[in-house]
Amino acid sequence: MIVVMKKNANPNDVEAVKNKIVDMGLEVYESIGLNYHIIGMVGDTSKVDSEVFERIEGVEKVIHVQEPYKKAGRLFHPEDSIITVGGRTIGGKKLAIIAGPCSVESREQILEVAEKVKEAGAGFLRGGAFKPRTSPYSFQGLKEEGIELLKEARERTGLPIVVELMSPDKLDLFERDVDVIQIGARNMQNFELLKAVGKTTKPILLKRGLSATIEELLMAAEYIMAGGNENVILCERGIRTFETYTRNTLDLSAIPVIKKQSHLPVIVDPSHAAGIWWMVEPLAKAAVAVGADGLMIEVHNDPQNALSDGNQSIKPEKFQHLMESIREIAKLQGREI
Amino acid sequence: MIVVMKKNANPNDVEAVKNKIVDMGLEVYESIGLNYHIIGMVGDTSKVDSEVFERIEGVEKVIHVQEPYKKAGRLFHPEDSIITVGGRTIGGKKLAIIAGPCSVESREQILEVAEKVKEAGAGFLRGGAFKPRTSPYSFQGLKEEGIELLKEARERTGLPIVVELMSPDKLDLFERDVDVIQIGARNMQNFELLKAVGKTTKPILLKRGLSATIEELLMAAEYIMAGGNENVILCERGIRTFETYTRNTLDLSAIPVIKKQSHLPVIVDPSHAAGIWWMVEPLAKAAVAVGADGLMIEVHNDPQNALSDGNQSIKPEKFQHLMESIREIAKLQGREI
Amino acid sequence: MIVVMKKNANPNDVEAVKNKIVDMGLEVYESIGLNYHIIGMVGDTSKVDSEVFERIEGVEKVIHVQEPYKKAGRLFHPEDSIITVGGRTIGGKKLAIIAGPCSVESREQILEVAEKVKEAGAGFLRGGAFKPRTSPYSFQGLKEEGIELLKEARERTGLPIVVELMSPDKLDLFERDVDVIQIGARNMQNFELLKAVGKTTKPILLKRGLSATIEELLMAAEYIMAGGNENVILCERGIRTFETYTRNTLDLSAIPVIKKQSHLPVIVDPSHAAGIWWMVEPLAKAAVAVGADGLMIEVHNDPQNALSDGNQSIKPEKFQHLMESIREIAKLQGREI
Amino acid sequence: MIVVMKKNANPNDVEAVKNKIVDMGLEVYESIGLNYHIIGMVGDTSKVDSEVFERIEGVEKVIHVQEPYKKAGRLFHPEDSIITVGGRTIGGKKLAIIAGPCSVESREQILEVAEKVKEAGAGFLRGGAFKPRTSPYSFQGLKEEGIELLKEARERTGLPIVVELMSPDKLDLFERDVDVIQIGARNMQNFELLKAVGKTTKPILLKRGLSATIEELLMAAEYIMAGGNENVILCERGIRTFETYTRNTLDLSAIPVIKKQSHLPVIVDPSHAAGIWWMVEPLAKAAVAVGADGLMIEVHNDPQNALSDGNQSIKPEKFQHLMESIREIAKLQGREI
Repeated sequence: MIVVMKKNANPNDVEAVKNKIVDMGLEVYESIGLNYHIIGMVGDTSKVDSEVFERIEGVEKVIHVQEPYKKAGRLFHPEDSIITVGGRTIGGKKLAIIAGPCSVESREQILEVAEKVKEAGAGFLRGGAFKPRTSPYSFQGLKEEGIELLKEARERTGLPIVVELMSPDKLDLFERDVDVIQIGARNMQNFELLKAVGKTTKPILLKRGLSATIEELLMAAEYIMAGGNENVILCERGIRTFETYTRNTLDLSAIPVIKKQSHLPVIVDPSHAAGIWWMVEPLAKAAVAVGADGLMIEVHNDPQNALSDGNQSIKPEKFQHLMESIREIAKLQGREI
Repeated sequence: MIVVMKKNANPNDVEAVKNKIVDMGLEVYESIGLNYHIIGMVGDTSKVDSEVFERIEGVEKVIHVQEPYKKAGRLFHPEDSIITVGGRTIGGKKLAIIAGPCSVESREQILEVAEKVKEAGAGFLRGGAFKPRTSPYSFQGLKEEGIELLKEARERTGLPIVVELMSPDKLDLFERDVDVIQIGARNMQNFELLKAVGKTTKPILLKRGLSATIEELLMAAEYIMAGGNENVILCERGIRTFETYTRNTLDLSAIPVIKKQSHLPVIVDPSHAAGIWWMVEPLAKAAVAVGADGLMIEVHNDPQNALSDGNQSIKPEKFQHLMESIREIAKLQGREI
Repeated sequence: MIVVMKKNANPNDVEAVKNKIVDMGLEVYESIGLNYHIIGMVGDTSKVDSEVFERIEGVEKVIHVQEPYKKAGRLFHPEDSIITVGGRTIGGKKLAIIAGPCSVESREQILEVAEKVKEAGAGFLRGGAFKPRTSPYSFQGLKEEGIELLKEARERTGLPIVVELMSPDKLDLFERDVDVIQIGARNMQNFELLKAVGKTTKPILLKRGLSATIEELLMAAEYIMAGGNENVILCERGIRTFETYTRNTLDLSAIPVIKKQSHLPVIVDPSHAAGIWWMVEPLAKAAVAVGADGLMIEVHNDPQNALSDGNQSIKPEKFQHLMESIREIAKLQGREI
Repeated sequence: MIVVMKKNANPNDVEAVKNKIVDMGLEVYESIGLNYHIIGMVGDTSKVDSEVFERIEGVEKVIHVQEPYKKAGRLFHPEDSIITVGGRTIGGKKLAIIAGPCSVESREQILEVAEKVKEAGAGFLRGGAFKPRTSPYSFQGLKEEGIELLKEARERTGLPIVVELMSPDKLDLFERDVDVIQIGARNMQNFELLKAVGKTTKPILLKRGLSATIEELLMAAEYIMAGGNENVILCERGIRTFETYTRNTLDLSAIPVIKKQSHLPVIVDPSHAAGIWWMVEPLAKAAVAVGADGLMIEVHNDPQNALSDGNQSIKPEKFQHLMESIREIAKLQGREI
């Protein structure tokens, strides 16, 4: 971290900056030029709050040199993390394919979709039980009943289940019944929820917020990991841009960036990103080609009558086609499905 | 969706419309004026076929209301809402000035700031007890102890207290001890939290999300109001843009838009928007000039040593100067402080 | 606006529709299929009253075409456009690979890079002669001398050259000496420049603006095409988002959208999008997997000493590796290099 | 400027960085910590291109300390600039009020509007002759004839005229006939146009680009000033955000930032920002309250039949009302109209 002093800053302010640095157990270095005066600090600054300096009057600005995350970063954890879920893995050579409907709607629906996605080669079953909806008047999910139906689908197919948690008060239920706990995009900075899931050991699938930077996503992961739970899987699901044709803009360049900055596995959700079913397959192929560790795909047996997000769901037959397409690209990447 | 009945429509037709709405599992609301008779429906109308109503003889026309919010909208509530808080009001002729430190840090600090902002003319005291921080390593607030100190400050000054709630499990505490419950920008679409505060009757100060549209803000208000709590105050606090000089970009054009679309009071927080103390006063003046119903200002007795957001806090003397500046503009607007 | 005639409409009615369009100062265009007969109008239809047509008996319906572009759209031009450049094509089965340095810097540099990218399989040579730079103090290009050096490189290698035009006053020079005229992202809505290149017949490579929507990109293409030049190649090169790790965010979902909305070929520039050399190859692979018609890659023999954008340039050896990687993915897509 | 080296960077790269700094006539300073290695440079770095360092392999990142603009900056020009236009000034105590129609449409229209805005107190007349339009099929302006009509309006009223220039080839005409040359938002980074107007001495009104940062706006001003023309007036006219109710989001916090960073005068265009006529007055008031040096307002005698942007134009009577409202706020600011 580097503190840039104002031109002609009060010497007391310069002294105050230096004293604060020393108080933190860090070393000071200083550089005075014609038009500026810079004070740097040597040592581990990853937990230093830059505001401590910004509010001193003589300070022009404070510049970060080190990333503000540590447990999520690759610097101190150079090996890729591989998360184990019910005998399966996320993050290794094998791509993790998570598929299923946006919402669990009925026993027939979830059982049918689960068997179909399993046949096609999916490794995990997704399904919403508690649904975050923009309107209070929209279908909010089957809730506890949805979890029960997912458990039945798991029993039938052997697929571990991935379900979104929206509030800390359901954590006990999720810990007991769910295999991967999903934190949705709108809750990426719901810090109380992050702290709550930091206390469990269940794998957490953390979705990138709608307008979050990669650093903010990694800081959200840091929240969970700082609580003690290092089983975090990241998910790129599209960010908000000015483009209106697609619901969000899938940021595929985030994948190589995250792989470089972090050891955590990262998967891609092309269904939510585009919001348009016929774009799911080309985006899934691109995601594999760019190096993603897995995919999350919405599959519904009857998209036209889906209670949520039918427009972005594909039918089981199309999912099977998608799986065949990505299998070949995965091979070129030295990966498998 | 709104059904406009013909003037002097047959009462049986009015009944038929209402019955159809109820049969769809929606709620009816009705508004009868001198020249019109409107029947609205509350619930998910996105799949309702308007022809169902158009066929009924007494129906003049069926309007697809573009706005997906109803309780928060001005259409059925043309009068400005005025929220009453401990004998004071938010939303009327008098501007609501909420001031205080970002975080409660100590008894001395909060008592001193409370007295100073009261002297300068503030009507409400703000102070964070549970703090949402981007880094898990930053100061997270004094929590319950912070609430106790705010209560003491309230006793001393008579100022109602405004405190941010981050998780439903603290709602009982807040209902008992706090006067206005704040929902922060990062929780604007934390739907479980919105549902929770929809069940209380305490006034809710709802901040606009970092990249939320005005419609999304009003939908978040709708969540709270649909739960039964109509005491919602909106707050513009800056949105994320590409500009990096300021922390966020204060969207002052949102104020006239919100005043047109909604009956709810709307205030402006220039401190969080800019993130820079010397910009607070000019932005506060502009906020009053554009028609805001109030301001939320961060004031700290010792910004250089504040534990959070010191960089955007002003000292009590500067706050007093700000109050004098806006008093004159308020007068030009036909308002008072 | 499009008028759909009834099947077997009276020829007099067809005539009436056309006459009305001409009377409005608009141009008529017509498309007759097995099962339809469509009459379109070219010009500003935003104030045309659709009832004028609906009253005519032979008219089936009048469609407000949401898209404001026509010549660039697929509706009246369902076949993919293939642009021919010096015996080579852009837009067909064969991927167009355009490679070369950001700026032409010296005879040695451009000749060496040209030969190396040709060997690796590139089909076109790029090189900047007039450079758009954010700072007036940065290197602005070799200008006319740069064009001369590019011509020499073309003679040696046979590769057609792609060069950016920044101002209409150089158009004569470019028409004579250059094979594909590039319009840069910052000039995407420089309407005078678009009009100017609409009058030539040279192929135009049109880059998407930094915060432009796909519709705006297609409207910029429409400007060129409305001037008479239908040889337009589109280029996705990243859009501005809040992400700061990469220079821009490559919007790969734009590719399937553009392929659906327009008949024009579309290529991807991963070098400018990311701004980071090691991300070029994974993004290039993803671009091919998602369906792009080609790539534009910055290659420099000595990136460390490049006069512009060295940070995003790859060396010839890395380019060769990239070509091998994408060749395999291209095969899976039923394409070749 | 500070160069952060990668951990374990090759010593040759470290040496290369230091040599480059010394070659530029700057001094080196160095700081080596546990996890980083920093090399700083002392001297005037405002014209140093950071890419020179970024492309050296051992370099992690380059951090700017100084602003990249110089002539536009306040550092070396602490006094406010005041631009003189035909005996009037922009930038001093008196607010510059520029008013008139979006496009000149007819002799009657421009003469009527000119007289009305003069009566109401405007100091300058605006009017578009060459119009940048998103669609090639929209009205493109009266061109040279429009300039002639503006000249006639100037003769009648004495108001200097402000007209947008879109291409360098019309510069001679504009130098001869126009008082202030406007560069539109879409041309803010049309560098050839900026260079062209840098060679005249006419005042330039430079509008902020749709998604430009303040630094980019100041760099565009720097382009003009580096060419020799220091008579630059900046204009905030709204930036692109996710909000869809307004056309753009007026960034009023940009005003105090620009006043702090630059000595150039800055005005506000609320008409283009909001795109909605009834928002013009409240935003104009806020602009004056926040410290703008002037306003640019669209006024049309018959907005419903305007050939462009009628929706954002106000009638002369409303303009008069606006002038009265802002006069009082100006007084509070110690300014006059």
